[in-house]
Amino acid sequence: MGRYALKIEYDGAPFAGWQRQADQPSVQGAVEAALARLEPGEHRIAAAGRTDAGVHALGQVAHADLVKDWEPFRLSEALNWHLKPSPVAILDAVEVAPDWHARFSAVERQYLFRLVARRAPVTHLAGAAWQVRHPLDARAMEEAAQALVGRHDFTTFRSVMCQAESPVKTLDEIRVEEREINGGAEYRFHVRARSFLHNQVRSIVGTLERVGAGSWPPSRVAEALAAKDRAACGPVCPPQGLYLANVRYPADPFASG
Amino acid sequence: MGRYALKIEYDGAPFAGWQRQADQPSVQGAVEAALARLEPGEHRIAAAGRTDAGVHALGQVAHADLVKDWEPFRLSEALNWHLKPSPVAILDAVEVAPDWHARFSAVERQYLFRLVARRAPVTHLAGAAWQVRHPLDARAMEEAAQALVGRHDFTTFRSVMCQAESPVKTLDEIRVEEREINGGAEYRFHVRARSFLHNQVRSIVGTLERVGAGSWPPSRVAEALAAKDRAACGPVCPPQGLYLANVRYPADPFASG
Repeated sequence: MGRYALKIEYDGAPFAGWQRQADQPSVQGAVEAALARLEPGEHRIAAAGRTDAGVHALGQVAHADLVKDWEPFRLSEALNWHLKPSPVAILDAVEVAPDWHARFSAVERQYLFRLVARRAPVTHLAGAAWQVRHPLDARAMEEAAQALVGRHDFTTFRSVMCQAESPVKTLDEIRVEEREINGGAEYRFHVRARSFLHNQVRSIVGTLERVGAGSWPPSRVAEALAAKDRAACGPVCPPQGLYLANVRYPADPFASG
Repeated sequence: MGRYALKIEYDGAPFAGWQRQADQPSVQGAVEAALARLEPGEHRIAAAGRTDAGVHALGQVAHADLVKDWEPFRLSEALNWHLKPSPVAILDAVEVAPDWHARFSAVERQYLFRLVARRAPVTHLAGAAWQVRHPLDARAMEEAAQALVGRHDFTTFRSVMCQAESPVKTLDEIRVEEREINGGAEYRFHVRARSFLHNQVRSIVGTLERVGAGSWPPSRVAEALAAKDRAACGPVCPPQGLYLANVRYPADPFASG
């Protein structure tokens, strides 16, 4: 009997989200079904971030308890074999201590949001980014974002469905990276925190986009935060631009991988 | 009556290639159908590169003759509207001289080939790159590639279906760019020439991959070229990694765009 940490990449498009659901495809369900092909019976895995429908991952982390003593590389290969043709890949597997927990041991989640600004519809980036048709001002977005960094009551930037006990969270970083792309520009939002509220990143990016478009003065973001009122939030942006990029632990379980 | 040059981006996956076919979807057919929504009747457009089934474009160039006097930006917007939901986008449109020809006026084609080396199956890059599971040596591939640069008889690297009159072509550049990606590496091949033989880029990259994998010594590429024998070629790699990246003309028709 051993506990294994899995680093998982996925395209969220075909899934109703990370979390297992009775009647809809989920990433958790796909990984648990692959585990059941290796060790029959019911598997229950826990993940660092329960991503919403359509949200992607570059470095989701989950843990699984297995009866057999698996060589970690063989475990990842066997899972990838059984995951086909789902767009889910086990990038790494390592054995961890029995009390190590993918969710509760995590000390930081890193999200990436890809926002594309160009007139012509995206083709290769369809499903991989959120597109707007107007130009954006990266400096204005990054300037406005700084009001959100630090420890705050994020009621404004929290889904009404959010089940967290407290709306107070500490955002460690929001960085906006601008890249030239074919016929336009891409803005990559890099956001780091110990943990997030439900829809927090999509609420923040949707609000910053209003600033980038020139519809909101940058100062309105600080005012929206201070209002502690969901109605003060900008539009929540769609899920296909969001990626759970990385999860950090006190000691990186994948460091040797 | 005016002639318009169109810069076109597309995801080649759903198409049987650029060229119009009676019973299969093609990029040319999609653009011609969109033109027919603007000006009823049959449209015949010509393109700089007739890409194969599954091959993508970032900067295909075609020209169309239209009866009405179109404001170029409005033309591109109208075409993009009618192209939906096909993954084809008009990035730019400009009016050109009546004797300007997308294919015959072109002086250089630039192709990009994306080759991914990692163990875990690709998810976000599915259909956008060719994946191998073993590591590759970028320097060995680039070293071997230099034997192909210049004016040569490329019979070895030419499909038996190729209809070009001569197998002699001049390759201006093959550059191999290595990038770290999630859990592996990506190799981007940048290839430039006035014109190419059928399957030439895919034959070259498939052969260089053998060098990168260590199965072929770099010197074998020069020997394969000198053999002028299709049987001396390495495996032709699949289409989904190939992109027509750019087309050059004596004067860039899109320079003002």
